[in-house]
Amino acid sequence: MIYDVTLPISAGLPVWPGDVEPQIVGQASIPGGDSYNLTYLRLSSHTGTHLDAPLHMYAGAPAIADLPLDRLIGECWVSRLPDRVRRIGAAELQAAGIPSGTRRLLLRTANSTLWDHPHWEFRSDYAALLPEGAQWVVDRGMDLVGIDYLSVDLFEADKLPSHRLLLGAGVLALEGLDLRLIPEGCYGLICLPLRLMGAEGAPARVVLTSP
Amino acid sequence: MIYDVTLPISAGLPVWPGDVEPQIVGQASIPGGDSYNLTYLRLSSHTGTHLDAPLHMYAGAPAIADLPLDRLIGECWVSRLPDRVRRIGAAELQAAGIPSGTRRLLLRTANSTLWDHPHWEFRSDYAALLPEGAQWVVDRGMDLVGIDYLSVDLFEADKLPSHRLLLGAGVLALEGLDLRLIPEGCYGLICLPLRLMGAEGAPARVVLTSP
Repeated sequence: MIYDVTLPISAGLPVWPGDVEPQIVGQASIPGGDSYNLTYLRLSSHTGTHLDAPLHMYAGAPAIADLPLDRLIGECWVSRLPDRVRRIGAAELQAAGIPSGTRRLLLRTANSTLWDHPHWEFRSDYAALLPEGAQWVVDRGMDLVGIDYLSVDLFEADKLPSHRLLLGAGVLALEGLDLRLIPEGCYGLICLPLRLMGAEGAPARVVLTSP
Repeated sequence: MIYDVTLPISAGLPVWPGDVEPQIVGQASIPGGDSYNLTYLRLSSHTGTHLDAPLHMYAGAPAIADLPLDRLIGECWVSRLPDRVRRIGAAELQAAGIPSGTRRLLLRTANSTLWDHPHWEFRSDYAALLPEGAQWVVDRGMDLVGIDYLSVDLFEADKLPSHRLLLGAGVLALEGLDLRLIPEGCYGLICLPLRLMGAEGAPARVVLTSP
């Protein structure tokens, strides 16, 4: 089984307030008399389902194209947190039954239901990691943590402390997952961001596989 | 082993003449006094390593986000054609020893060496499929054919006959592969284009795996 956990990109997909909104712009069109259809894209590097590299928070740190593929492809654990959990701290992660040795952790929260209406406005009341939750992930030596809205930090955490803790420790942040249909458990993760040279983030296509 | 066969995207990457050139544009920068680095992208949907959907040539045909993932993930054959072959016809494919039953075929030609200098200008003398070569692929019921420069059609084939034959039969065209380091043989293909709604093509991250 292959599950697509990527948000579809189109005009109207919510973006972080102030960020560039996605546009797929026509350059040539068959209905318009051209012999082929052709578009170009105007997108934030943090559009929809996307990966943050350490360069997002730290000058001189690794960029998207510098990340080794074996961090992005391999076993992961999808943890289904209770819908009431909005501020994800160490206690919530400890209680979640995450297997020891997990290197890639995807957090399914009540956020995923926000994608039932992908053209909703940006929501600021999404669930995300408290700094102590980010530290819990760092302390376990993980390679990657993913979440089902547009930030690993709570909206009110305007200094982005969870980003700083994670990316400072080299833990990649995968944001904007659609985990609505994914039961808790172990999967194969394939997370492939665009190979953007020198960029601090990139839109990605992300799929989960199960035997 | 995981091999990245994706061209790195940066300003200067050759594009089809007249198409939008890739730009990674700064929105916020730590050296400039911001608390994070942030960019946005301006890219043709056919930038670098990219996938063509049938909609590229046929109005109303499937778009990128409509393509089933099991067409894009699975076994493939990389065929190393002799460097002297520029016009790839049925005879050249017949002579190449491509295993019967191949569903995904990637053609490594002399084109790949063009990526030794990725910031070269666009080259019009690349190797590509003659229409009879495209028909050979269609006749074998393949899902996908890939090549190591920016088009499955020869530059002088300005009506794009190989595109029309392939996409008309539902054979996806994967263009702009970097196969320099890939010996002929069987691999696992993972081809993940951006999930662009309604688009006729999309930049993709493409990797090959071998046991």
